[in-house]
Amino acid sequence: MNEIEGGICTVKGVSAWGVKQGKYGLAFISAKGNAAGVFTRNRVIAAPLILTRQHLEGGKLSAVIVNSGNANAFTGLEGLEDARTMAALAADKLGIDEKSVGVASTGIIGHRLDMDIIQSQLNQVEKALTTSNEGSAQSAKAIMTTDTFTKEVAVELSDGTRIGGIAKGSGMIEPNMGTMLAFIYTDAILDQLTLKQCLHSAVDKSFNMVVVDGDTSTNDMTLITATGQSGTPDLKKFQDGLDKVCITLARMIARDGEGATRLIESRVKGAASHTDAVLVAKAIVRSPLVKSAIFGRDPNWGRVVAAVGYSGAQVEPDHISLAFAGMDKSAELVIGGRILEVTSGTLEDIMGSEEIIISVDLGLDNGSATAWGCDLSYDYVRINAEYTT
Amino acid sequence: MNEIEGGICTVKGVSAWGVKQGKYGLAFISAKGNAAGVFTRNRVIAAPLILTRQHLEGGKLSAVIVNSGNANAFTGLEGLEDARTMAALAADKLGIDEKSVGVASTGIIGHRLDMDIIQSQLNQVEKALTTSNEGSAQSAKAIMTTDTFTKEVAVELSDGTRIGGIAKGSGMIEPNMGTMLAFIYTDAILDQLTLKQCLHSAVDKSFNMVVVDGDTSTNDMTLITATGQSGTPDLKKFQDGLDKVCITLARMIARDGEGATRLIESRVKGAASHTDAVLVAKAIVRSPLVKSAIFGRDPNWGRVVAAVGYSGAQVEPDHISLAFAGMDKSAELVIGGRILEVTSGTLEDIMGSEEIIISVDLGLDNGSATAWGCDLSYDYVRINAEYTT
Repeated sequence: MNEIEGGICTVKGVSAWGVKQGKYGLAFISAKGNAAGVFTRNRVIAAPLILTRQHLEGGKLSAVIVNSGNANAFTGLEGLEDARTMAALAADKLGIDEKSVGVASTGIIGHRLDMDIIQSQLNQVEKALTTSNEGSAQSAKAIMTTDTFTKEVAVELSDGTRIGGIAKGSGMIEPNMGTMLAFIYTDAILDQLTLKQCLHSAVDKSFNMVVVDGDTSTNDMTLITATGQSGTPDLKKFQDGLDKVCITLARMIARDGEGATRLIESRVKGAASHTDAVLVAKAIVRSPLVKSAIFGRDPNWGRVVAAVGYSGAQVEPDHISLAFAGMDKSAELVIGGRILEVTSGTLEDIMGSEEIIISVDLGLDNGSATAWGCDLSYDYVRINAEYTT
Repeated sequence: MNEIEGGICTVKGVSAWGVKQGKYGLAFISAKGNAAGVFTRNRVIAAPLILTRQHLEGGKLSAVIVNSGNANAFTGLEGLEDARTMAALAADKLGIDEKSVGVASTGIIGHRLDMDIIQSQLNQVEKALTTSNEGSAQSAKAIMTTDTFTKEVAVELSDGTRIGGIAKGSGMIEPNMGTMLAFIYTDAILDQLTLKQCLHSAVDKSFNMVVVDGDTSTNDMTLITATGQSGTPDLKKFQDGLDKVCITLARMIARDGEGATRLIESRVKGAASHTDAVLVAKAIVRSPLVKSAIFGRDPNWGRVVAAVGYSGAQVEPDHISLAFAGMDKSAELVIGGRILEVTSGTLEDIMGSEEIIISVDLGLDNGSATAWGCDLSYDYVRINAEYTT
């Protein structure tokens, strides 16, 4: 498997474009094929998700329209009507069935959409739809809110199958969910059931292991469409490729968490079960105290031990081993409950790194999991205190 | 019931004192009687908690010794030995059985105690033990870490029974736990089983409903001792008094959360069950997005709706009603899922208040609960990025 350029537009059968004007943006992606989705587990589900879930019952999508700046969430029946209008406008542009259009939104909750903006931006975008790499980049940019960089990735498998994705993240990102917004395309020939299984498996290892702030959005959605313009892939290799795409996007989302200055990866092994490993890995990247310490470059590993202890997983304090690593150096801090002496120079180097890896071995059995998060900085507070209603 | 001065020292049979020198402090409380405790649910349990739980098996305490600056947590068998030494030193001062001494610690995790400091501070404190109000104030001060004010309260019931408490809070404070440090005394005549039941009931309504940052400490502990020097109280009135003492201390802990500029109270009713109401009330005060918005005086109530939705409770979006209130004004924002227009002047007044009350009616059944938290400010990040190991 090779990483390649071009994001979603490198996949055969995909054309896309997007615009961003002030805080409002719109992306439009045209790609026909079998499709599947994963949606937020928040009980307050935004209108576009209710609609897209209905549309996916047919098993196919021909296009996806996404707006940023307004989440169209908690907007009642009028909101659902607005989402339906978005689908109809998009369908009209391409001469397709409106029930084959996926709709997604991100932004503020509790406000009606401004349909004039949507219509005007869709007019601009539709004229520019392209299969060139720029189409993926512009779409990825159009769906950003407080993101600071665009998130796109593509891979090519040994049999020529391509898988590409774009995503947006930043705030309201947390563990118990479907995911943030991510749109993934492949030119492989795959039926809907297989696509769905592969997507669920990949999302559980990637987006569902990212914690920025512990707030599950009302609008989280991941869609995958298989255009079928390439061949039938080896399923194991396809899953590996899809995992790679989702994990790469998930890491980008964590790295670009609101206000983040560094990525935190927590690797847990030796847990009594996989479920326990997930609990521990997420508890570490979720802890505001661990996150603040890493922002302050403080190797305060006692806070990691506390998070392990309250995670809900089975824990034996004198079986715990713990290590911190940066991009160049690593240091074992605890082995089997015994605290080791570490030279402060080594720890300083590690804590100065842009990516901090926290490895925990619970020493009980062979459950393992990896989660991603980011540090908690002054900017997280600034961004969320100032994001005005 | 009347609120009275004097904290724990207003209770007959209690003498206390404390010292604080730099980041190290020690409080010593002498009071014989039936006793009960509630302890952290963190699986990594600090040494003093293991010891105190053993000592409480006898059902009685004669004294409590508490140090601040070092948590004596994740310190293995040596840590347990240090906790035992603290109990022995305290017992020696008063000529009591060391198994009747409660030991508590708060501070950094993963470091051995400096027993020289403990011994020297105990020598100073023991000479100054007093039943005057100043003893309670000095004890409350000695156990502070990043707290910015001392937390003490006392009430007198109509039958003359007194109940007083001191507490410390600030960081590593969260929902799934026994509690932060709180020491409560009453001169009522009560057996241990009754004390235990009353304490659990009060803690569930108070300390367990406080969220500062969602991190459960390894050292949370609440102890109650009944000196029996007053009469046998009416149990209903005693429970009301104990609830009042615990809720007052819990609110103080929330108000003094690390970096807090304001108190948040979330009142939930209309939930399908009490458990659901607790989930919703805590999800609101736990949400970093809600907390940041309140720091920024931003009435971004959509974030409250999102928190309600992901709380895990049964929720029907079009049954939700929502109101914000400050200390003078209040505003209904949503009734039965319908968004109301509110004048921005009213909202500005509310958001400028020192206490913000968020009221949610789920409109389903009659489950209700109240939780307390604080806003998320730059100072939370500063305090926890700089608290050095």
